[in-house]
Amino acid sequence: MKVEEVRPQEAYGLTYEAAGVSIDAGEELVRRIKPLVRKTFSERVLTDIGGFGGLFDARFPDMKFPVLVSSTDGVGTKIKVAIEANKHDTVGQDLVNHCVNDILVCGARPLFFLDYFACGKLHVEVGESVISGFVKASQENGCALIGGETAEMPGMYAEDDYDLAGTIVGVVDRDRMFRRENVVAGDVLIGLPSTGLHTNGYSLARRALLERYPLDSKPAVLNGGTVADALLKVHRSYLDPISKLLERFEPGKDIHALSHITGGGIVGNTSRVLSDELELDINWNAWKRPAIFSLIQEAGMVPEEDMRRTFNLGIGLILLVPSSTSEAVEDALKNIGEKPVRIGHVVRK
Amino acid sequence: MKVEEVRPQEAYGLTYEAAGVSIDAGEELVRRIKPLVRKTFSERVLTDIGGFGGLFDARFPDMKFPVLVSSTDGVGTKIKVAIEANKHDTVGQDLVNHCVNDILVCGARPLFFLDYFACGKLHVEVGESVISGFVKASQENGCALIGGETAEMPGMYAEDDYDLAGTIVGVVDRDRMFRRENVVAGDVLIGLPSTGLHTNGYSLARRALLERYPLDSKPAVLNGGTVADALLKVHRSYLDPISKLLERFEPGKDIHALSHITGGGIVGNTSRVLSDELELDINWNAWKRPAIFSLIQEAGMVPEEDMRRTFNLGIGLILLVPSSTSEAVEDALKNIGEKPVRIGHVVRK
Repeated sequence: MKVEEVRPQEAYGLTYEAAGVSIDAGEELVRRIKPLVRKTFSERVLTDIGGFGGLFDARFPDMKFPVLVSSTDGVGTKIKVAIEANKHDTVGQDLVNHCVNDILVCGARPLFFLDYFACGKLHVEVGESVISGFVKASQENGCALIGGETAEMPGMYAEDDYDLAGTIVGVVDRDRMFRRENVVAGDVLIGLPSTGLHTNGYSLARRALLERYPLDSKPAVLNGGTVADALLKVHRSYLDPISKLLERFEPGKDIHALSHITGGGIVGNTSRVLSDELELDINWNAWKRPAIFSLIQEAGMVPEEDMRRTFNLGIGLILLVPSSTSEAVEDALKNIGEKPVRIGHVVRK
Repeated sequence: MKVEEVRPQEAYGLTYEAAGVSIDAGEELVRRIKPLVRKTFSERVLTDIGGFGGLFDARFPDMKFPVLVSSTDGVGTKIKVAIEANKHDTVGQDLVNHCVNDILVCGARPLFFLDYFACGKLHVEVGESVISGFVKASQENGCALIGGETAEMPGMYAEDDYDLAGTIVGVVDRDRMFRRENVVAGDVLIGLPSTGLHTNGYSLARRALLERYPLDSKPAVLNGGTVADALLKVHRSYLDPISKLLERFEPGKDIHALSHITGGGIVGNTSRVLSDELELDINWNAWKRPAIFSLIQEAGMVPEEDMRRTFNLGIGLILLVPSSTSEAVEDALKNIGEKPVRIGHVVRK
């Protein structure tokens, strides 16, 4: 009889371990991630992990009217792709970058991030890999991973399943916010490329694709990559190019607004920064869609309307720019290695 | 043939709806919760829901050195009890109050909260009920429900299952923080009663109880209440009594530290505010445990050690108080209707 089969705790009654919650695995995970997480700390972080709350210096002496901008998100069923492909180091990056972009479109730079990691059974290696993704993207975005919660929930999640949620808090001076009031008819829509689906539309993508193209298949249009590679491409952060633009261009004046293309697609998201009398005139042929979108559309016979209201279709962020500065903004983007594309205009209804 | 059975979208290809994600249900939920959520807004909230990020005034002119204190948490498998009992209006309160307590033990008062609500299928009534719980507790704690994410994830969660995560951000002046450095040998441990399990130990409790005592059963010790009632008792917030104490007593001096009793129990959590040379001397007979704990222990034959490291056992918050002020603190607590209990001391190892 192997030692594991004795399980003496059950002979003497029910313990927390026997009920499916491993305190030791949780402690081991914390031990492993502590040095990783600490790499994200700046001198503004006034705490260490393990306390009840994360502490962050809230003095903003360079700002006239500091405004905290916060957002919570998940990665949707992209997580199912990560689990099925057994590749766990990118979904954390997806989530941080998604959240960074969500507050960036208000003009805010990130301060700190907190994660929620819930699983059926805590596999320490998987947890460490997921959290290494949070750490990597937090460092890239100059954001402190200031807190988190790991929850082992047998019976809620299948043994190898897990879900993630993340919350970001950033700051912007009120005078430097993008605002929908600034957008007017005639504004040019300048799109920046996405890396793929980012974090939206995975339920549809998986239903459309996976029966015909399993995750490890290599359809010719993907140029040698697998379906898993294409679906797991990391949601990019637009913090770096937008920060560089804001060194030269004034938010609200030279650039009227930004739109992060998530669930709801280009029109659904960009309409959120339009006043009621305005709408979008999009030239849907202005750019070439990445191959993964055509593959999804063909495999699932997905109507074009559903493609447009579900996916970013290759455009991850849109700048709404007055025509007077649009060329200068495009040139500045090209100078920092971006590939901006004019995808349409704001028009009166 | 019923209309629902036609499902014309499948005849013409796969849509987002057919892939199991209902955009209409999401929009209907947002329509219903918008007026509820707005009730939690103060003049410091500079936004409305529906934007990409929640905006909050970050000026703290009354503070010398404002520190943001943040925490993320879930409610663990208490959510399974809510789902099985089909009672969804309390788990949101549990989560807000849990988070409020987690930052309260640093001395912080809450500013805003963001929720994550992920489900297998979005039932609008269930979602509305869950979010009404967030709203109720946010109002009670003077906290703005500034953002949230609703995710429909077919294939990850069973159709009627859902999970919640929440993030709170609060603020404290650095000079008014509780700190572990202040705790010394001789400090008195004053416990405040919990309402029940709060949000910890549900995997063990469910395994121990539910085979013998189904959720709708009424064991005699519960005095006419059901097991579901006892298990779903709302995790209480200690913001009100602690705020009242802090009008008279100085944090760090008259009250050295606070400990919120969550997973890990009384010793696991309170040890986090002790320096290495100190430990706790608990008188485990100093208070009467609520009946639900004895029921769990007996039904599951749970060893006493596991009870202590899993459950709060009736003590939800502990104040670590110098002996010189302990009587005054106890009297003040009694005067505002609390039932403080001396449960032990801090001692040198």
